[in-house]
Amino acid sequence: MPNSPHDLRDIRTIAFDADDTLWRHQDLFEGTQARFVDLLRGFHDEDWIAGRLHEAEMRNLRLYGYGVKGFMLSMVETAIELTEGRIGGAEIQRILDLGKTMLDHPIDLMPGVAEALAQLAGTFELMVITKGDLFDQETKLARSALGAHFKAVEVVSEKDAAAYAAILKRHGIGPAHFLMVGNSLKSDVLPVLAVGGRAVHVPYELQWSHDRVEGASAASHGYLEIASLSELPGLLADTP
Amino acid sequence: MPNSPHDLRDIRTIAFDADDTLWRHQDLFEGTQARFVDLLRGFHDEDWIAGRLHEAEMRNLRLYGYGVKGFMLSMVETAIELTEGRIGGAEIQRILDLGKTMLDHPIDLMPGVAEALAQLAGTFELMVITKGDLFDQETKLARSALGAHFKAVEVVSEKDAAAYAAILKRHGIGPAHFLMVGNSLKSDVLPVLAVGGRAVHVPYELQWSHDRVEGASAASHGYLEIASLSELPGLLADTP
Repeated sequence: MPNSPHDLRDIRTIAFDADDTLWRHQDLFEGTQARFVDLLRGFHDEDWIAGRLHEAEMRNLRLYGYGVKGFMLSMVETAIELTEGRIGGAEIQRILDLGKTMLDHPIDLMPGVAEALAQLAGTFELMVITKGDLFDQETKLARSALGAHFKAVEVVSEKDAAAYAAILKRHGIGPAHFLMVGNSLKSDVLPVLAVGGRAVHVPYELQWSHDRVEGASAASHGYLEIASLSELPGLLADTP
Repeated sequence: MPNSPHDLRDIRTIAFDADDTLWRHQDLFEGTQARFVDLLRGFHDEDWIAGRLHEAEMRNLRLYGYGVKGFMLSMVETAIELTEGRIGGAEIQRILDLGKTMLDHPIDLMPGVAEALAQLAGTFELMVITKGDLFDQETKLARSALGAHFKAVEVVSEKDAAAYAAILKRHGIGPAHFLMVGNSLKSDVLPVLAVGGRAVHVPYELQWSHDRVEGASAASHGYLEIASLSELPGLLADTP
């Protein structure tokens, strides 16, 4: 079955998503958001605060794009809005400090990542393809000590089929030789299948509501699913 | 004189800086900063406010990188610091609105840019190499209507010799065939000369103090200088 999604014999290049695939990120966002909610608890209930913050993030996405700095600005805006301007300078500074702590946080690698990359780097060309803030992602990669494994790092503003097609073309990679590995069906799996590549989904425990795709499944869409990156070398070696 | 900086016969690829080379940007920063100073004028004098804002920007560069969102966060932080936390929510919102206006501002092309690019695109491979926020730069390029002229757009977090060497290698461009055009000696000219490329300096009226390089001159460092991009096609055609 040369066209089976389980047949990875032709793969030469493996690209990895970064946040919540190589290292934990959503936990940090959720932790920061919990502390933000605590700050405003005297004014509103928890769900209302979280809901309004999410609305601000979505409203500002067009101007800010993805990333921690935009999240910080949306938190400040939400705090002003929910207190009708009564929030004090010290509380706003506390919000800025929460964001700075995120930006400076030690990198917490997902289980098995370092070993899997070291094993795969000998046989495959490895890349990172990630969304978000270029500066954030580059400093995180530097702090992760994983940088040496990757031949290229691509930071894009949106991970859609057009973005993947452009990257494959720029690097001269045929889609049949390309495997993308990531935690997001919407960003890492479905658009890669759409351009003729292979994809492995590594679900993360927490899923950002913006990233969910209804009705997608490994069986119906032709991708593979593993619980941890430590299973990836075996998957590539096992090909019949 | 094949090695003269004035000999551009071998050039095949021309890369352009974006902010203050293709379109005005520093004016927007200065205008926003003037309105920010106005907001705090009741607390401190103008130079003191501008000086403390610049200090905050430099202090936060390691965490925020370059770009409007980091500038917004540094303005908020400076406003809190300079008012010892007495700034109100409405004023902070006003600062956020100043930043959003910058992010959404119509693109104001530098003189002669559209014509020069249209003329050069037939003969040379054109690229953009810019520093700053990936999302900002991509949306500005889209709004500029110049996108179709460029074969590649590279957004890097720092424009140093290593960054240029990596871009040339990735695109398979020999340094002798590469010309960089930009307004910053520090980012667009000197690091390109250091990797063996050619450079054309197009000085901008306003220079951000962080971008100044003491003692560099066209005569001593071997680059060309023009007053406007409209002179560039002539420069490339004039080569003896």
